[in-house]
Amino acid sequence: MTPPPSLRLVIIGGVAAGASTAARARRLDESVAITLLERGPDVSFANCGLPYYIGGEIGERSALTVQTPATLRALLNLDVRTGTEAVAIDRPGKRVQIRAVATGETSWLPYDKLVLAPGASPLRPPLPGIDDPRILTLRNLSDMDRIKAVAAVARRVAVIGAGFIGLEMAEQLIHLKKSVTLIEAQPQILPPLDPAMTLLMADELRTHGVELLLDDAIAGFAPAAADSGLECQLSSGRRVTADLIVLAIGVRPDTTLARSAGLALGPRGHLQVDEYLRTSDPDIYAAGDAIETRDRITGDPVSVPLGGPANRQGRLIAGHLFRPAATRPYPGALGTAIVRAFGVAAGLTGWTEKRLLAAGRAYRTVTVHDNHHASYYPGAKPIALKLLWDPADGRVLGAQLTGLAGVDKRLDVLATAIVGRLTIDDLAELDLAYAPPFGAAKDIVNLAGYVAANTRDGLVTPCDTLPADPAVQILDARPPGLVRKYPIPGDVSSINIPLAELRARSGELDPARPVVTVCALGKTAYFAARILAQRGFQVSALTGGLRARLDPRSPAKLPTL
Amino acid sequence: MTPPPSLRLVIIGGVAAGASTAARARRLDESVAITLLERGPDVSFANCGLPYYIGGEIGERSALTVQTPATLRALLNLDVRTGTEAVAIDRPGKRVQIRAVATGETSWLPYDKLVLAPGASPLRPPLPGIDDPRILTLRNLSDMDRIKAVAAVARRVAVIGAGFIGLEMAEQLIHLKKSVTLIEAQPQILPPLDPAMTLLMADELRTHGVELLLDDAIAGFAPAAADSGLECQLSSGRRVTADLIVLAIGVRPDTTLARSAGLALGPRGHLQVDEYLRTSDPDIYAAGDAIETRDRITGDPVSVPLGGPANRQGRLIAGHLFRPAATRPYPGALGTAIVRAFGVAAGLTGWTEKRLLAAGRAYRTVTVHDNHHASYYPGAKPIALKLLWDPADGRVLGAQLTGLAGVDKRLDVLATAIVGRLTIDDLAELDLAYAPPFGAAKDIVNLAGYVAANTRDGLVTPCDTLPADPAVQILDARPPGLVRKYPIPGDVSSINIPLAELRARSGELDPARPVVTVCALGKTAYFAARILAQRGFQVSALTGGLRARLDPRSPAKLPTL
Repeated sequence: MTPPPSLRLVIIGGVAAGASTAARARRLDESVAITLLERGPDVSFANCGLPYYIGGEIGERSALTVQTPATLRALLNLDVRTGTEAVAIDRPGKRVQIRAVATGETSWLPYDKLVLAPGASPLRPPLPGIDDPRILTLRNLSDMDRIKAVAAVARRVAVIGAGFIGLEMAEQLIHLKKSVTLIEAQPQILPPLDPAMTLLMADELRTHGVELLLDDAIAGFAPAAADSGLECQLSSGRRVTADLIVLAIGVRPDTTLARSAGLALGPRGHLQVDEYLRTSDPDIYAAGDAIETRDRITGDPVSVPLGGPANRQGRLIAGHLFRPAATRPYPGALGTAIVRAFGVAAGLTGWTEKRLLAAGRAYRTVTVHDNHHASYYPGAKPIALKLLWDPADGRVLGAQLTGLAGVDKRLDVLATAIVGRLTIDDLAELDLAYAPPFGAAKDIVNLAGYVAANTRDGLVTPCDTLPADPAVQILDARPPGLVRKYPIPGDVSSINIPLAELRARSGELDPARPVVTVCALGKTAYFAARILAQRGFQVSALTGGLRARLDPRSPAKLPTL
Repeated sequence: MTPPPSLRLVIIGGVAAGASTAARARRLDESVAITLLERGPDVSFANCGLPYYIGGEIGERSALTVQTPATLRALLNLDVRTGTEAVAIDRPGKRVQIRAVATGETSWLPYDKLVLAPGASPLRPPLPGIDDPRILTLRNLSDMDRIKAVAAVARRVAVIGAGFIGLEMAEQLIHLKKSVTLIEAQPQILPPLDPAMTLLMADELRTHGVELLLDDAIAGFAPAAADSGLECQLSSGRRVTADLIVLAIGVRPDTTLARSAGLALGPRGHLQVDEYLRTSDPDIYAAGDAIETRDRITGDPVSVPLGGPANRQGRLIAGHLFRPAATRPYPGALGTAIVRAFGVAAGLTGWTEKRLLAAGRAYRTVTVHDNHHASYYPGAKPIALKLLWDPADGRVLGAQLTGLAGVDKRLDVLATAIVGRLTIDDLAELDLAYAPPFGAAKDIVNLAGYVAANTRDGLVTPCDTLPADPAVQILDARPPGLVRKYPIPGDVSSINIPLAELRARSGELDPARPVVTVCALGKTAYFAARILAQRGFQVSALTGGLRARLDPRSPAKLPTL
C-alpha cells in the first residue's frame, strides 16, 4: 500500500521552469504527488536548440527531447499529462480546471501548492494578412517542424526581427541555402545591445548573404502579384516577397489564466512574484518567461525570458516548498545572453548604455579592442569589449562583447564580476588563466579595467566620435603604411605623426588648439594622448579606435606594451 | 634644451615585469629618465610562446619579439641597455654597478628609484653528468634557439619534469615527430594539481605517443653505451637514452644580486616586498618571478612565477612611483594557470586539496562531470570541475578543471568568483551566457554549486572511492547496456538497478547494510541516493562517477534533468 501523498503539487507548464521544479521537488521529497500539466505534446525539450534542427546543425530531432513524458514518469515518478490545458484556477477551492486538448473534456484537479510556468508566446501583431499560413513563429517542436517543412520548399525567406532568435534563424536558413532577408524595425540588429557593438555581427550577416533591412517595420502582408510568394509590406513602402516568413519580434507572457484567477500582474502582463517566487496567492508560485523578477543590480522590476533563469527559478521553488529555511531568496537576473551567427558572437550582461540612459542613471563607459588570445600565437581573433560602470563606486554595471572567439568567456567573467560587486580596479587585477592558446598576460578584461581606471583617474579624456569642429586637430598616430591603406573615413583633415616620432614632432601641432588622437585600436591613441597631455596640449583620445569604424577585421599592428 | 630628468629610474630586467614597469612609468611621466638593463640580447619577448616556436606552431621567430630595444627606445623613450648585467648595488650611494657582458667593462649608474625584475632561472641540480651540452633548459630566446637546433637532429628526447612547461615541450616535440619520454619524480603529471584532475591529460599524452615515467626522479646522466645518445639514470634504476634532454623541473629566483645588496629575502630566496612591492629598501622595488607576494585568499607568503602577475606588478610599481595616492595595494595572486597538450586542457585557480591538506586548513570538495556546452548540440566535449570551499562560510577556495574544451572559461569564472568572495550558493545562481554553441542552461559551474550545496545541506553524502568493505552494497544505477559495456573496474560486486526501476526494486537491497550508489557521471548516483535515503537507507553517492575511473572519454547517457 502506497501511503497518501504528503502534498499535492500541480505544475502548469512542462518545459524549463516547470520541469526543473518537478525534478527538484521529487529529489527533495519522494512522497509528494506531482502532476505536470503541459498543453503541447512535449515536455522538457531543448527549446534553445530549435533553430539548429531547422538548419540541420542538429541532425536528430530526438536530440531535442532528452526527456519524454515516459522518462519523466519513470525517473521522477511524475504524473505527466501532455495535451492538457489548465483553463481555470479555483483559488478558494484550491483546484485547477483542466481540459484535454484532443477531446475538450474538462475536469478538476485539486492542489495544495500550484506552480505556474506557462512561458511566453511569440508576438503576432494584428497586421493585415497576418493569418497567412506561411507566417510562422518558433516556440515549440511543432512550430519547428512546421518551419522546417515550409523551408524545405521555400526559396526566399523573410525573418522579421533581428533579435537573438531572428539572427539564429537567419544563420540557419542560410545554411539551408535560402535567400534570406532580415527585417528589423530598429536602426540596428540585436536591439538589446548598444549600436556599435552590433556592427561586426551585421557585417558578418551581410558577408554570408543575409540582406539586412534596418529601421523598417513590418506593416502588413499580401499575396505577391508576380508569383506565388507572400509580400511583406514595410513602413518605408518597401516590399519583400518571400515563400516563408519567420516572425521573431518578441514574446508576450502567457498569463491569461493567471489574470482570470485574479493574480497580480505587472504593467506588461507578467506575473508578479516575491523573493521566493510566490505570486499574490502564497499557495501559487510562478517561474520562467511569464514572470517579472528583479534586476540583479538595481532591484528594478524586469522580465528576463531566458532558459538559465527559468531553470534556477524552478529549482528555487522546489527548495522553498520543501526546505524553506535553507532556501535563499531569488537574487534576480543579470540577463546575460549571447548569440552566434556564422563566425561572430555577440552578447551582453547587466545594463547597457541604452538602458542606463533611458533610466537616467549615472554611468561611465569605455570600449576596448584586442585579440582573444596572445597576439603572437596563431589564430588570434579580434574581440571588442564595452564596459559600463558606476562613477560613484567604480562597480561594473554591465558589459557587451563581440568578436570572432572568446566572447562567451569574457561575458561569463563579467557576469561573475557583477555578482561579486567588483570594480574597474578589480577587473584590472583579475588573475585569469594564461597560456598562449587561451588568453594573454593582459586579458581584454584586464585591459578594460586599465582603460576604465585611466579614464576615471583623468589620465586620458576619451572621446567617442571624431570631432566635427575643424578647429580640433586630429592626430593620426598610426604607421603611415596603415594610414595610406585605411584612411580615416569621411572628409576629415588629419595629421599623421606615428607614435614613435611624436616626441620629436609634437611641434607640428598647434598648442593653442585642441587635439584628438586616433589609431586603429585605441591603445596607441592613448599613448599619444599621454605624451601630448604632458606637453601641455588639451587632448582627448578616440576610444575603441578606427578599426571598428572602418572594417572591424582590418589589421592593426598594435604595440603590445 | 631638454630639461633635466625629474627622476632617474633604473630597472634591472627587461622582460615581463621590467618592461611593464618601464612602459607604465613613461606613460605617467614624460620627464623621468628610464634605464632598462637586460643581461640578455632581447627585451620584452613572449616567453610563454617559446615552446610553440620550437614545435613550429609559431612559424616566425619575430612573432616572439614584438618589441625590440629599438622600438622601446622609439615608443617609450627608454635608455635600453641589452647585454648589460647589474653586478652590484651601492644602496647608500644609490647607484648600480653594471658590466657589459661582451667586453666585461664595468661602470656605475646612479638611480633615484631602482626596480628589480631579474626573474628566475631554471633549476639545474648538481647531478652527475649535468654539464652535458645536450641537457638544455628553456628560459629565453637563446635557450629556445639551442633546443630547436638540437631537436632538429635528435630522434629521442627526454623531458624531465611534467609541469606546465614540460607538458608544452612534450607536446611540441611530438609535433616534431620525436620519440618523447616525459619523466616526473611525483607519481602524477602536473604536480600542482590534485592527482585525479591530471588523469585525462596523462591519457591524452599517452594517446599521442608520449611515454610517461612517473614516480621516478632523475639521478644522473652518462654517455650511452650502445649509441651516441645520453643516458638519463633514474632513481628506480631505469635508464632512458635520448639525444636531447629538456630539463623543466622548476625555477629558482635570480636574487644573488639582491642578496649581496643585503635586501630581505624569503626562505626560498625570493625578494620580500610590501603591499606596494617595495623591498626592505624603500627606494628599491621588485616584481616578477623573483619576488614573494601574498596568497590572495589567505595572505600567506607565496611565489607565483607567472606572466600575468608579473605584468600587473610592473604596472603597480610605476603607479606607486608617480601616483602613490591613487595606487591600490597589490592584492596578491591566485596562481590561476592553464596548460594545453594536444586536445586536452587542465588548470587551476586558488587552492588545491593538496595544499589545503598540507596547510591543515578545513575544506570541503566535490568533483562534477558534464559537457562543455549543451549536450544536445553537436560537438559537446567532456569537462570535469573540482571545487573546494570553506565549510565555515561556503566561500570558494579553489577550483581545478580538465577537459577537451571550455576549461579556460570556467577557470576564469572561478578565479573571478574567488576575488568576489562568492560562495557555493552564489555559483549555483550565476547568470552565465547560454546559447547552445557556448554553454548550457545549467553550466558546469552552476552544477558544481548545486552539488556542493546539496553536500553541505546533507541531501547527499558523497564518497570519493568505491568501498572496499564487502558489507557495503554497491548500487550501479546505470542502464544495463552501459554496465555491460563498461563494468565497474576491479573485482567489485555490485547490483545493477537502473534509476528508472529503483523505486519498484529497492526491495532487492538489504536495508540493514549501507549502500553506495554509482553511475557514469555522478548525477544519476545522486538521484538514486535521494530515493534510497528517503526510504531509510544509509546511503552515499560516488562523486564524479565511474567515467573518470574507467575511461574519461567513455560515453555516459545522462538524464539532463
